[in-house]
Amino acid sequence: MGRVSDDPDARPDTLHTVGEIAALARIVPRLPRGGATVLGPGDDAAVVAAPDGRFVVTTDVMVEGPDFRRAWSTPHDLGWKAAATNLSDIAAMGAVPTSLVVALIAPADTPVAELEQLADGLADACAALAPGCGVVGGDLTVGDTLTIAVTAFGDLEARAPVTRSGARPGDVVAVSGGLGLAARGLRMLFDEGVNADGVPDAARAAELRADEPRIIEAQLAPRPPLADGPAAALAGATAMLDLSDGLALDARRIARASAVTIDLDAAAVCIAAGVDAMFLPVVLTGGEDHSLFATFPAELVADGGPGLPGGFRVIGRVVEPGDDGPELRVGGRPFAALGGWDSFEAPGS
Amino acid sequence: MGRVSDDPDARPDTLHTVGEIAALARIVPRLPRGGATVLGPGDDAAVVAAPDGRFVVTTDVMVEGPDFRRAWSTPHDLGWKAAATNLSDIAAMGAVPTSLVVALIAPADTPVAELEQLADGLADACAALAPGCGVVGGDLTVGDTLTIAVTAFGDLEARAPVTRSGARPGDVVAVSGGLGLAARGLRMLFDEGVNADGVPDAARAAELRADEPRIIEAQLAPRPPLADGPAAALAGATAMLDLSDGLALDARRIARASAVTIDLDAAAVCIAAGVDAMFLPVVLTGGEDHSLFATFPAELVADGGPGLPGGFRVIGRVVEPGDDGPELRVGGRPFAALGGWDSFEAPGS
Repeated sequence: MGRVSDDPDARPDTLHTVGEIAALARIVPRLPRGGATVLGPGDDAAVVAAPDGRFVVTTDVMVEGPDFRRAWSTPHDLGWKAAATNLSDIAAMGAVPTSLVVALIAPADTPVAELEQLADGLADACAALAPGCGVVGGDLTVGDTLTIAVTAFGDLEARAPVTRSGARPGDVVAVSGGLGLAARGLRMLFDEGVNADGVPDAARAAELRADEPRIIEAQLAPRPPLADGPAAALAGATAMLDLSDGLALDARRIARASAVTIDLDAAAVCIAAGVDAMFLPVVLTGGEDHSLFATFPAELVADGGPGLPGGFRVIGRVVEPGDDGPELRVGGRPFAALGGWDSFEAPGS
Repeated sequence: MGRVSDDPDARPDTLHTVGEIAALARIVPRLPRGGATVLGPGDDAAVVAAPDGRFVVTTDVMVEGPDFRRAWSTPHDLGWKAAATNLSDIAAMGAVPTSLVVALIAPADTPVAELEQLADGLADACAALAPGCGVVGGDLTVGDTLTIAVTAFGDLEARAPVTRSGARPGDVVAVSGGLGLAARGLRMLFDEGVNADGVPDAARAAELRADEPRIIEAQLAPRPPLADGPAAALAGATAMLDLSDGLALDARRIARASAVTIDLDAAAVCIAAGVDAMFLPVVLTGGEDHSLFATFPAELVADGGPGLPGGFRVIGRVVEPGDDGPELRVGGRPFAALGGWDSFEAPGS
C-alpha cells in the first residue's frame, strides 16, 4: 500500500494502486477546514461548533447513472454539485451552512487525480457559495458504482427553523434563483450531448457547455443562492424549501404541509424565470433548480414595505384552500399535473 | 406511483412498483424519533439538539460486495450493523450518541419489506445499544448496488473529546468488547458459509449462525459497548479509538498520533479476548470488532485506585518510544506486521 511506481511511463495512480490511506493523504489537505470545525478529519469522529445549541442536518446522495453521467460531469462538477445541493437544503431551513461530511464510493481503478479534482469541486463550492463552510470528515470506500453521499450542517443563529408548514393565506409566494434552467440543461444534454447511438458523449457535452454555459452549468454545477436562505428567515419568511423536484411539485408540498392553496401567477413565473411563456411547462415541472421557494407576509411588499430580501421575486400568493383542500393553482386554475423530478422515473436511468 | 396491485398473487411491492415516496411512508414510521430531535424527517433538513454547543459527527458506508454479502446478512443485520459501527465511532470520542441520518441506495427491485426490515435493524440497534438515539433524516435512492451510508451524531456533555493523541508514557492500555471475534466470524463464513463453488450461501450461513451465534453475530450484527465510551471519558481516558481495523493496526494509530510506544501483553490480550494463545494472531490483526481501545492513567488501576470503568480490561502499557520512534510492541518486541482490515484487500472483494 502507498507505493508509487518508479516507472515514469506507468499508468496513473489509482485508488487500487495507492490504497485508501495514501489517497486520503492526498485528498484531505485540499478540503476547507471551516470556521466551525473544533476537531477535523483524522480521528474516529469530528467535532463541530453548534453555537446556538442545535444544528441543522441533511443528507443527499448522488449515484452514477440515475443522478449523473461521467461523460457529462467532470469530477470537479460532481464535488461541486454534491456540496451545492446539500448546502441548499441547509439554507432552505434559514440556516447558515457550517460544514459537511462526505462519504465517497469509487471503483478501484479511479485515478487519484480525479478524486483530487472532486475534492477541489467540494472546496470550490464551499468557498463560492458558503464561505467559511468546511469539510470535517468523510469515508472513502471501493465499490463498483461512483457514489457521493454528503451530509451537511448548518447553524440557525438562534432563529426558529423555517419549515414547510408555516405558509398562511395572504402571504406572497416568492422564489430566488433560476427556474427550469437545470431541467433545460438536462434535456439539452440528452438531446445533443450524446453520440449517434444516444450514448452520453464527453466531447459533444463539452461543445454544448461552451455554447450554452448558463443552461448546462445550471444542471452540472448549480449555484444556489444560499445566502438568501438566512436572509429570508431574518425577513420573516413563513415557509421555505429548496426547489429540487420542480416548482409545481415542491409548491404543492408547501401547500399540503401548510394546509393552504398556492396560486402561482404564470406571467410572474415566466418573468422570474427569464423565459418566454412557451417555457412555462418546463419552468413548472423541471427539477434540480435548487432555488429557494418561500412565502412571506404580504406587508413586506406593500407600499412603503421593506420589499423582499436578496434575489426573491414574487410569483404568486397563498390563499385559503377550496373545497378540494390544499392544492396548487396557476392563474387561479387547479394545476393537477404531477410533474417534477422523480429519481425513479429519471430519463435514461 | 404509490399504487399497490389488487392481485393477491402479485409479486411483492418493490421500490420500483411503489416509488420512493410510498416506500418512505412505510419506512419512516419504523424509525426511532430520539430525545435530541428538535425537528425530524419530512422537511429539507432536520434539527438536532446540541446542548453543549458542539456536536460529534462521523460517517461510514457499507457497500454490498466489499462490506457485506446478502447471502450472509439479513436486511435487519445490515441496518443493525450500519448503526452500531457508526455509533461506536461516536462513543470512541467519549460522546453519547444522539442521532443519525441514513442515506440508502437500493436496486429498484428491492422488496419494500426488506427496506422495512433494514429500518427495524437500525431502530433495534439504537434501542439496544444507545437508547434515546433517533433517526432524524435520510435519503432513499435507486442504484445498482445496495449501499448504506450512515452519519451519526453525539453529545460530549461538556467534556473534551477523547482523541487518539493523548496517550502518555506510564498509562495503561485497555480494551472493552470482543477481540478478533468478528474476524473469526468472517473467516468462518468464508470457509463454511459457502456452497461447493465457494459462493456465499444463505442456508449454510444460517446453519453456521445457529451453531456459533456469538462468533457469527460478532461479524454480522456487532454489539459494541457504546456506554463504555462516555464512561472512559469520565474516568479520565487519555486516548481512545474504535477498533475497526484490527488491534495491531489501531493500536499503532494511537502510538503514532500520541508519539508513544504501545506495549501489549500477549497473555493479557488473550485473556481479554477469552481465547487460547493460538488465536493471538487473529486477535491482533482481525478487524471489525468495534470494541473500544483506550489508554488510562495508571493510578486508576493502582492499589486503592477506582479501577477501570465498565468492561475495560488492561492489555498493555504505554512507554516512551525507542530509537525507532513510536511503534507497537507485543511482549516488549516490535510487532511489525501490518495486519488488520483494509477494505482494498478484503477477502473475496
